[in-house]
Amino acid sequence: MRPYLAPRSVVVIGAGQEPSSPGHRIAANARRAYTGDLAVVRPDGASIAGVPGYRSIRDVPFAVDLAVIAVPAAVAPLVIEECGQAGVHAVVVITAGFSEQGAASGTTDADLVAIAHRSGMRLLGPNCFGIIAPAVGLDATFSAVPPTTGGIAFGSQSGGIGLAVLAEATERGIGLSSFISLGNRADVSSNDLLCAWVDDPATDVILLYLESIGNPRQFLRIARHVASVKPIIVLKAGRSTSGRRGAASHTASLASDDAAVEALFEAAGVIRVDTLEEMLDLAQILAHQPAPAGPRLALIGNSGGPLILAADAAEAAGMQVPTLSEGLRSRILERVPRAAATSNPVDLLATVGPSEVADVVGIVASSGEVDAVVVASVGVRPHEDTNLDDALNGSEPAAQPVPVVISIAGIPARLSKRAVFRYSESAVRALSRAYGWTRWKERHAGAANDPATSEEPIDWLAVRRLVRSEAQACVDPNRWLSPDAGERILYAAGVHLAGSAIAGSESEMGECVARLLAETGQVVMKAIVPGLLHKTDAGGVILNIADTDSAVAAYRSFVERFPALTGVLVQEQVGAGVELLVGARQDPSAGPLVVVAAGGIEAELLADRVVRAAPLSVDQARSMVLSLHTAPRLTGFRGRPGVDVDAAALTVSRISRLVSAVPELVEFEINPLVVSATGACAVDARLRTDIGLNTVRPLRGN
Amino acid sequence: MRPYLAPRSVVVIGAGQEPSSPGHRIAANARRAYTGDLAVVRPDGASIAGVPGYRSIRDVPFAVDLAVIAVPAAVAPLVIEECGQAGVHAVVVITAGFSEQGAASGTTDADLVAIAHRSGMRLLGPNCFGIIAPAVGLDATFSAVPPTTGGIAFGSQSGGIGLAVLAEATERGIGLSSFISLGNRADVSSNDLLCAWVDDPATDVILLYLESIGNPRQFLRIARHVASVKPIIVLKAGRSTSGRRGAASHTASLASDDAAVEALFEAAGVIRVDTLEEMLDLAQILAHQPAPAGPRLALIGNSGGPLILAADAAEAAGMQVPTLSEGLRSRILERVPRAAATSNPVDLLATVGPSEVADVVGIVASSGEVDAVVVASVGVRPHEDTNLDDALNGSEPAAQPVPVVISIAGIPARLSKRAVFRYSESAVRALSRAYGWTRWKERHAGAANDPATSEEPIDWLAVRRLVRSEAQACVDPNRWLSPDAGERILYAAGVHLAGSAIAGSESEMGECVARLLAETGQVVMKAIVPGLLHKTDAGGVILNIADTDSAVAAYRSFVERFPALTGVLVQEQVGAGVELLVGARQDPSAGPLVVVAAGGIEAELLADRVVRAAPLSVDQARSMVLSLHTAPRLTGFRGRPGVDVDAAALTVSRISRLVSAVPELVEFEINPLVVSATGACAVDARLRTDIGLNTVRPLRGN
Repeated sequence: MRPYLAPRSVVVIGAGQEPSSPGHRIAANARRAYTGDLAVVRPDGASIAGVPGYRSIRDVPFAVDLAVIAVPAAVAPLVIEECGQAGVHAVVVITAGFSEQGAASGTTDADLVAIAHRSGMRLLGPNCFGIIAPAVGLDATFSAVPPTTGGIAFGSQSGGIGLAVLAEATERGIGLSSFISLGNRADVSSNDLLCAWVDDPATDVILLYLESIGNPRQFLRIARHVASVKPIIVLKAGRSTSGRRGAASHTASLASDDAAVEALFEAAGVIRVDTLEEMLDLAQILAHQPAPAGPRLALIGNSGGPLILAADAAEAAGMQVPTLSEGLRSRILERVPRAAATSNPVDLLATVGPSEVADVVGIVASSGEVDAVVVASVGVRPHEDTNLDDALNGSEPAAQPVPVVISIAGIPARLSKRAVFRYSESAVRALSRAYGWTRWKERHAGAANDPATSEEPIDWLAVRRLVRSEAQACVDPNRWLSPDAGERILYAAGVHLAGSAIAGSESEMGECVARLLAETGQVVMKAIVPGLLHKTDAGGVILNIADTDSAVAAYRSFVERFPALTGVLVQEQVGAGVELLVGARQDPSAGPLVVVAAGGIEAELLADRVVRAAPLSVDQARSMVLSLHTAPRLTGFRGRPGVDVDAAALTVSRISRLVSAVPELVEFEINPLVVSATGACAVDARLRTDIGLNTVRPLRGN
Repeated sequence: MRPYLAPRSVVVIGAGQEPSSPGHRIAANARRAYTGDLAVVRPDGASIAGVPGYRSIRDVPFAVDLAVIAVPAAVAPLVIEECGQAGVHAVVVITAGFSEQGAASGTTDADLVAIAHRSGMRLLGPNCFGIIAPAVGLDATFSAVPPTTGGIAFGSQSGGIGLAVLAEATERGIGLSSFISLGNRADVSSNDLLCAWVDDPATDVILLYLESIGNPRQFLRIARHVASVKPIIVLKAGRSTSGRRGAASHTASLASDDAAVEALFEAAGVIRVDTLEEMLDLAQILAHQPAPAGPRLALIGNSGGPLILAADAAEAAGMQVPTLSEGLRSRILERVPRAAATSNPVDLLATVGPSEVADVVGIVASSGEVDAVVVASVGVRPHEDTNLDDALNGSEPAAQPVPVVISIAGIPARLSKRAVFRYSESAVRALSRAYGWTRWKERHAGAANDPATSEEPIDWLAVRRLVRSEAQACVDPNRWLSPDAGERILYAAGVHLAGSAIAGSESEMGECVARLLAETGQVVMKAIVPGLLHKTDAGGVILNIADTDSAVAAYRSFVERFPALTGVLVQEQVGAGVELLVGARQDPSAGPLVVVAAGGIEAELLADRVVRAAPLSVDQARSMVLSLHTAPRLTGFRGRPGVDVDAAALTVSRISRLVSAVPELVEFEINPLVVSATGACAVDARLRTDIGLNTVRPLRGN
């Protein structure tokens, strides 16, 4: 990846005579400040925009680190091949017309990557917009705006968003350490970028615009590590049906279920933003200042309105606006008019000037009573922003204890070392996102959150063998395993199941009932009727069977009621408890996931569910279960006793480890998991494998 | 109110020599373009900023329509008095230091109003920032930015927000028809502004920044009328605890419960925005274009990323991005490259120029397939916004069928006749808010939504008399009426109640049970124990009593269990049904409200409730009840039959009319209302009056 961050020499292949052509603009941009060797290659060998030209990559008189390819799609394969033969280290393919247009040129993305890899080259693109490597002064994009150097690395799956962010970053005073347009991500992916940027000393903050995540398992593993070191801000587009329609025609990438993506990002410690504006707002703060260490904000300004709006935004975003201590309030009042409101929001009134505001900010920021300061003021004088910024920069101590963000309503935000916003609400929202990252780091730290070490080991090799053998014995065309097989697999993974047996006839049924009644006090009988969805509603479940006579009566009622009856499930009757649904799946866009939902007859109506990326430690599983709205059913409410939440958490954790460790289990569901005062017991489980359904292929690298 | 919209002559009283003093700046601003007679009054009678000066209002040689008062607080009462004597029609009091500072000057807001009203003058302020009346070229504020003339009327309860909006309106090309800084709203209120602006032909759109609503009953009545004519955009600050702390010290106004305010705005047809930015975004659209008539958006651009973000924002905001018809798609493809994506989002690719974009916008906007067009593009060339705006203005038909909003990522938004945004998400969000107003107008039209005519009349006079007599008989210090009295009042308002009686002894209890059993099949017995909260949990409710023996046994168990037992409620046992809680109250910040919540044992846990402003028609009450998350309990789910939703709606409507018609009923609750297949029956009701608690005063005008 180094050639993309700091190439030692660059050749632009396919620079046109026409100044508006992409190759020409790239050559012209590169020439501006690049410190390495630079050349263009064109059929006539002419110089372009003052950059020396050659007829072929072979004629270039220096060793080429990076080749930027902007030739027509038809010749791109040949050009990549020649680059490889000439010893180029890496290529950027600007050219479009491959997989994103249904391989209009007759060549797929995979074809290009295969050619590049044959010579050991990495390939960025195709259909991308170039790179910027400020470390070596290189702008190899066709952006009209020269970038500023700074600590932000930005990777974009959309050229248009790349262009927009480059332009706005400059306007907002955000400097870049690296910009990479990912295009079709045929080879170099956002995962590669994360790996490169985490070790790049020039990069403090990582920004990604993504429309899909190619390899979510790897993304989780890598991002989790990177996020513990540097903030990763992701704008993930394509939440909506029509947005995905756009994404599909735009980059031919697979759509994501947004709840799944949310779960992945939450687990990975990624700071997710909803809009481009929020991404830039957050970058503007983190470019120069640390994330808040806690939720406490001081709001300081010269007018009540913006302060109240900021306070509203703070509480809406889960931040706090604590009342300041009497001591601190008197220290503030030493500097400003007595009529000022000092409880927080701190309204210094319209007459105060920049230096008094800066004094008060300094006092409050270093008080230890807040984790960030938002100046939410109104521009009553010209150059209020510049003056205030200067005053703040002049007055504060060198090691600033907490982030300070300025918002000045009514005047345009200008270039500033510090974040200057127009709207106090935006500043507050951005700080709350940054604090979300702090909270994630706190939660992420500590062994209690490591699924691998927090619980006794499971013999995954044995579980995997069992899955394979059961899958091979499976006859269902959709690859749902028999209840029996599913039970064995869950048992091997440490999940406690209700005892059960299947009977195909009245006499078999009698035997099953007798055996189970000997072990337990009561049994349940469930009709097995193919295609019957809501068994309970249809009278297909009979409870409280305590003797064989009732069992026979129940059996006969099933026979009468369901002509399509194929058998009867006889099951240990699990005592009263709270019913949960626990599911898991391999999500193509977000990797292994686990879902916990409120169960029981009103499950669909309540729609109370939580999705998390797997695996989860027992602690994480407990917090997941307790984040259900109906969690008081588990912990007890209105005098009702609680149930064994720990047992539920243990089950969820094991299920999450199962789906994470055994990718061949593509989907499964326990419904219900009955959680009682003495434990958690799975009553019904369905498991589906992809063995025999598709060839199991290693996932393509993202 | 006319002197505030178009004063014929203006005097500024208290203009200082110092150019930075408020009075001086107001005089200077007024002089710039005011078409009427203008003077200043100061002790020395000197001219200020070129405006002729006089020693007293009596010396001014023309009849004074409006006096702007910026004198010290101590002399303000005298100055107002003199204005009245001199025949001034209305005053604007800039001076602060009255009720908002605990009447620091020794004078309250009410004192000032009393003086003004004695001479028949209206009073704006005190503690305000002035007015702008573009109809007569008057800027009587101390804003640094000269306003532009246009169709937006803006009233602000915060001077700072006023200043900020004035500055930004100019920057965004939003012109004003009127600006009024409300200050402490001692006399002139936002309700007065609404009444004035609805008939003002220069005003197309109304903007309000409010921190509280003084007279919510009147606001509802007035705003509902105005909103059916012109859009009212309200930014209501002070949602949060700390925000209200700010509001309290800022304008001494009462805090609001935000759900109550939300209900009021929903009923009034107000477009509520969450942030200052959203208010300006929406004003920018509605200043020049109509609100969308439906939810269907076309998204057109030159790059996939911003289009996908716009589509995500559209669905998140409840708008639709429909696939365009084949016919329309072919017409688009006649103008642009074949590789363009045309399904919607419409991605015309980076090579298209402003004229092609304008052509496509024209085709799509007039197709009848969408209700608004959002151009979500990236600035790839200089002056893209201006060029695109010019092209659109040049190409479109005179009567534009649907609103068209432009967003261009990466370049600053500039002045434009049409709304030009930087972020497509903001444009989409603003359109969705505007469409919310369209939807409200549709719902609001028609007799089905008029509570007064949609149902048979209730004899409110009789109900009010009953409330008064029951309240006079009430002995509870908190003014909760006896169950019996509450029952009579609800019965008079047409609410069906379960039959019940209270017994103080075993023998009384026996009689009650015998009587009720004769009428109904079974009774319930409830222990009456002062201070006992969750009766059911404590064993204080016994069901299914069908004979007097069981009744005696139940009574004795209560005596044993509850030493503090004061009596027993014997009640007709209402058949099985869905339990709802129906409450109502007079909210000081939002007026009469009705609340419907899911009932039953898990009510608190589900926290499923809806709040609406009263009164409601039966249709409105039905839609309120059906908007509960647990509404499927009422309509039937998973094979369970539904219950009598109409009966529930009728009850809710009557309760809403009761709280609306009888302000003396300050709080009441039916818990539960049991809704069965054959009707809705209130089982338990509590009513509280304020008669005898406070003197009943007419609400102060807002």
